[in-house]
Amino acid sequence: LLNDFRKDYLLDRWVVIATHRRRRPTDFAKKEAATQTVDKTTCPFSPGNERMTPPAVLVYLKNKKGNVVKEKDTNGVRHKDWLIRCVPNLYSAFSPPEKRESLVSGKAVGHHEVLIESPHHEEHPAVARISQLIHVVNGYVDRLKTLSAKPYVKYVSIFRNHGLDAGASLSHAHSQIIATPIMPIILKDELEASREFHEAHGKCVFCDILEREKNGPRFIWENENFASFAPWAGVHPFEFWILPKQHQPTLLDMQPKAIEDLAKALKTCLGGLKSLLNDPPYNYGFHISPNAERSMSYHWHLEVYPKLSIWAGFEKSTGMYINVVPPEDAAQNLKEAVEA
Amino acid sequence: LLNDFRKDYLLDRWVVIATHRRRRPTDFAKKEAATQTVDKTTCPFSPGNERMTPPAVLVYLKNKKGNVVKEKDTNGVRHKDWLIRCVPNLYSAFSPPEKRESLVSGKAVGHHEVLIESPHHEEHPAVARISQLIHVVNGYVDRLKTLSAKPYVKYVSIFRNHGLDAGASLSHAHSQIIATPIMPIILKDELEASREFHEAHGKCVFCDILEREKNGPRFIWENENFASFAPWAGVHPFEFWILPKQHQPTLLDMQPKAIEDLAKALKTCLGGLKSLLNDPPYNYGFHISPNAERSMSYHWHLEVYPKLSIWAGFEKSTGMYINVVPPEDAAQNLKEAVEA
Repeated sequence: LLNDFRKDYLLDRWVVIATHRRRRPTDFAKKEAATQTVDKTTCPFSPGNERMTPPAVLVYLKNKKGNVVKEKDTNGVRHKDWLIRCVPNLYSAFSPPEKRESLVSGKAVGHHEVLIESPHHEEHPAVARISQLIHVVNGYVDRLKTLSAKPYVKYVSIFRNHGLDAGASLSHAHSQIIATPIMPIILKDELEASREFHEAHGKCVFCDILEREKNGPRFIWENENFASFAPWAGVHPFEFWILPKQHQPTLLDMQPKAIEDLAKALKTCLGGLKSLLNDPPYNYGFHISPNAERSMSYHWHLEVYPKLSIWAGFEKSTGMYINVVPPEDAAQNLKEAVEA
Repeated sequence: LLNDFRKDYLLDRWVVIATHRRRRPTDFAKKEAATQTVDKTTCPFSPGNERMTPPAVLVYLKNKKGNVVKEKDTNGVRHKDWLIRCVPNLYSAFSPPEKRESLVSGKAVGHHEVLIESPHHEEHPAVARISQLIHVVNGYVDRLKTLSAKPYVKYVSIFRNHGLDAGASLSHAHSQIIATPIMPIILKDELEASREFHEAHGKCVFCDILEREKNGPRFIWENENFASFAPWAGVHPFEFWILPKQHQPTLLDMQPKAIEDLAKALKTCLGGLKSLLNDPPYNYGFHISPNAERSMSYHWHLEVYPKLSIWAGFEKSTGMYINVVPPEDAAQNLKEAVEA
């Protein structure tokens, strides 16, 4: 009657896999789908309301020949008829340094941006056109390239919050990008562990994990360039990861076919999650090597965290977790949902 | 316009203190007080329903002379007329080993108990009688002593969840106690950092913190044995800590006067939180040295985390936090509420 107690592949993070109080998908499915009131006249991310945000740092537009052109808002003018639009967050956690502040310690120097994923209010990855998701991924790559080149930026976090319970205060499809002046602890620990693994075994730990998870009980889905599985010691019910099959430290090296395959992986896997659990709230976050030269032993990936449980006193005061859905069950259910 | 970026006293944990998007208490106060339906006939923690839980491992009873007697349920009989009652969690995350399992790795060996804090359904710390809270604290100490003596137990986590949004599925006043087979990462890191500080400076880091916070902008309240303040790099809005003023690695060494003072600190500080924010959900967790002999450099304390924000993609994928209430504001408001 003992539950499993599992350690993350890399982190010193332990989780009780509550096999004996396991829950099924129907235990989580909301009684009614979330109905956030949408008023396009007041949504700051909808076309026509470009004035409600700061000027865009990046806009994708289609020119007369049908090609995508990249612009930014200048001279107080806001571009219209955009495909995607990246703007500074109106409530920035991190802000660029003023000249004389560039060396001030103790200040949240960096960037905090919103990538508006579509002019269509509800075009979330699960239902978006692949062509649109390709723009989103290209937008991530463009901003990652620009922000990580800044001297005061040590890491660029690209993430997405979906649903009120997962912290999305606006329902219009959007991601966020935060550039920070230090390496985040989770990434620092993962980078160090993968470096140590590489030194000890002469190979990438994530390539090794992929090999082991392939066709195993936690495997969910794959296409030519990407694979998805539920991690051995996932801390969230129905957590899954998406990894490039080829070893790549960062998003910056993706070829167009890989970008298309990532767009398909997002749509397929997030679509499976949506249909399995009645459009649950979730967060996702990219884990990226901040410097391809120095961290060749790291392998970028995307972690998806459905928001179906509450971290309470135990989790918050110890850093240990309890997951009531075994990753093997999660994978089996997600696999069926993805294939349906 | 830059926000503060602060590191925890001990942990490698960073938080943006969003001074430029700061929120006030009224931004958090719920429109209506939480109304969890209470049906004492079905509440498994209410008197008369003792059969709805496993047999108690500890019961406090008052004998005819008015003294507190400590018992446990035996032979299928459930004690009645109890003051507090500690029972195994019906949905245990951790379970005691069977004989032949005692050395099995990869299993969640340990204990998971519920301490029912009062026969009165709603007697939460903010409104409880001091005499009752003294029983609760004594109950913590008794279970800590018993559980930490077991050979397979490395740490005992004592915590409380209040309110549905903080993960309390039952509203009857209760705490939880989890004994784990490994040291939790947060405690491991804190113990190591306080040992290093002690070696470098010849004193306890928490005694040092107390000295620095005393009468400063983050100080909230004190009595003879305990002090409360909002931590410099708190990650939760209105987070506060309660520390013994005298250096103590663990709860086990408290004298009766200190136990009474802790009961008063709980009632006062949690009462201030309740009145300030209209009975918000919260979690608290004790941080304790697991072995008084070996970790004299550690200083036990209680951390209280109001549940007023959502950890989203950024927090979950990086381990960095954004706190929209500066600890100085939190302390000022809590101080006023506590003194009112």
